[in-house]
Amino acid sequence: MARQQHAAAPRKGEDALSALIALVRADLDACNRLIVERMQSDVALIPQLAAHIVAAGGKRLRPLLTLAAARMCGYRGSRHVNLAACVEFIHTATLLHDDVVDESALRRGQASANALFGNKASVLVGDFLFSRAFEVMVEDGSLEVLRILSAASATIAEGEVLQLITQNDTTTTEAQYLRVIEGKTAALFAAATEVGAVVADQPPARQAALREFGMALGIAFQLVDDALDYSADQQALGKTVGDDFREGKITLPVLLAFARGSEEDRTFWRRTQEDREQSDDDLAHALELMRRHGALDDTIRRARRYGEQAIAALASFPDTAEKTALANVVAFVTDRAR
Amino acid sequence: MARQQHAAAPRKGEDALSALIALVRADLDACNRLIVERMQSDVALIPQLAAHIVAAGGKRLRPLLTLAAARMCGYRGSRHVNLAACVEFIHTATLLHDDVVDESALRRGQASANALFGNKASVLVGDFLFSRAFEVMVEDGSLEVLRILSAASATIAEGEVLQLITQNDTTTTEAQYLRVIEGKTAALFAAATEVGAVVADQPPARQAALREFGMALGIAFQLVDDALDYSADQQALGKTVGDDFREGKITLPVLLAFARGSEEDRTFWRRTQEDREQSDDDLAHALELMRRHGALDDTIRRARRYGEQAIAALASFPDTAEKTALANVVAFVTDRAR
Repeated sequence: MARQQHAAAPRKGEDALSALIALVRADLDACNRLIVERMQSDVALIPQLAAHIVAAGGKRLRPLLTLAAARMCGYRGSRHVNLAACVEFIHTATLLHDDVVDESALRRGQASANALFGNKASVLVGDFLFSRAFEVMVEDGSLEVLRILSAASATIAEGEVLQLITQNDTTTTEAQYLRVIEGKTAALFAAATEVGAVVADQPPARQAALREFGMALGIAFQLVDDALDYSADQQALGKTVGDDFREGKITLPVLLAFARGSEEDRTFWRRTQEDREQSDDDLAHALELMRRHGALDDTIRRARRYGEQAIAALASFPDTAEKTALANVVAFVTDRAR
Repeated sequence: MARQQHAAAPRKGEDALSALIALVRADLDACNRLIVERMQSDVALIPQLAAHIVAAGGKRLRPLLTLAAARMCGYRGSRHVNLAACVEFIHTATLLHDDVVDESALRRGQASANALFGNKASVLVGDFLFSRAFEVMVEDGSLEVLRILSAASATIAEGEVLQLITQNDTTTTEAQYLRVIEGKTAALFAAATEVGAVVADQPPARQAALREFGMALGIAFQLVDDALDYSADQQALGKTVGDDFREGKITLPVLLAFARGSEEDRTFWRRTQEDREQSDDDLAHALELMRRHGALDDTIRRARRYGEQAIAALASFPDTAEKTALANVVAFVTDRAR
């Protein structure tokens, strides 16, 4: 299906991200150069496959958070560039492994690495990028950074495994769902911002505040993502529509529609999500049930509340352009759902 | 097919491993306890799947090397127990990812984790164990250890990707093959022994010597493994016979038989290994060609030479029971091929 062109004015959220990028432009350029430099290997397939995903124009949201957080803390060195690259390597490794796990055919609107290069290469290049991230952290030399990012990596894996377990299970609780998205998404956001405080030698309270900011922002991000998976608009994001529905991934929109629905509705959800017996009209019916029960609106509302929590976590930092830019990233994250 | 019982006297190699185990029994027990303790997660599938592979009775060869190397260097503390567990976690993570990559149905004579729990869970639990290894290293606090094991992890991934590239390619060179086995196997042996020297605060020359020992031992180990894959005897190891042949994995026995064979032989190898067109008699014919060209004997001979190199690397260490035990591990590795 053709990608739709949106000729309309840029969204408020996109402006916010542009402002952040403009603020750390030089750092981001250095980070991008470092990413390309450090994903090299004389085993040529590794940079080829890595380039497909690393250099193929993701938003670099997580490394941007590290860069901006460090600058907001008054950091003037260049270590944050290296650590932002580590964050992006870890993110990329999890994407490669996710696509194998999800058997996704598309990633960022393009053929996914596993579809192009095969599952085997995707698993192994993910392992390589993950190891390389730790090598770069070791060169940086901070055990605290290593502690934060190794813990985040373990938490990501736990979140992904829990997602696997809750898939096709309509008895999943909201608490379990929250644990999944904290793990698979928010843990790395939290680590990305916390590391910014660590390189800037901030006191523990500041470090904790930036961690809280990243965690709340990450949860908001994933809530919006899960709502967008049921939104026609998401074609603009280059994703397949209704992926989660087809796979029976139990996200908040489904949990809310299920909890608020009639027994007949629940039979529908069990058939399509647990038994994965789906016919052509089922996605449209799912959307109708979500609309009827306000499931998408309430998911977005929940995201905005986490967004407010993220902004509140920044209260103790002096007002700077970086602080404003980071606070506005919340708008970028939640306005995607407009 | 039924596993054969060998009622004969234990092999010299097995005696060697038993002697090593006896020498570091208390350390090994502590290491095994730590492995079980640190693979826990409240996401229950993680310890379940990990237990299937971690606790299912591998030889613990790599952690044994770390334990014995540290003791040979006169180390009297307990850090080596933690680091031996890290080495085993990294090894286990690569096994889980390997089995996904190889689509293996068996591992150590039992159903492999991917066959029992699915590829997705195997990828993710591998990621978890890998991350956990780094968390434990961070707690230990040595950047040098982190450097050695993160570099080894990247090299392992490179070796595995190179193996993927050379698979089904009979133009693979011996140099490429050596690079594959150095990466996928010997790098972790080398790191395991080097780390033993690091905890014992040994001078750089000693550290390099123990690294060399592990590297040569690891190459010998993989050479023997690759020969055993064409040996009927290997049923005793709990592996499927002829796996490499069926998959078209280009190992030294194939390279030697190919290089020494007639044009007709090469047509056979290209058909079975590159095109993977195989009939029932082909494995027997492959074995006959290897026998005719001394391919298995020469692979084992090569392994013994690396074994001698490993023993020579220990020359500068004082004669102790640990040194003798480590030198005898070479016999354990090469005598498997008897």
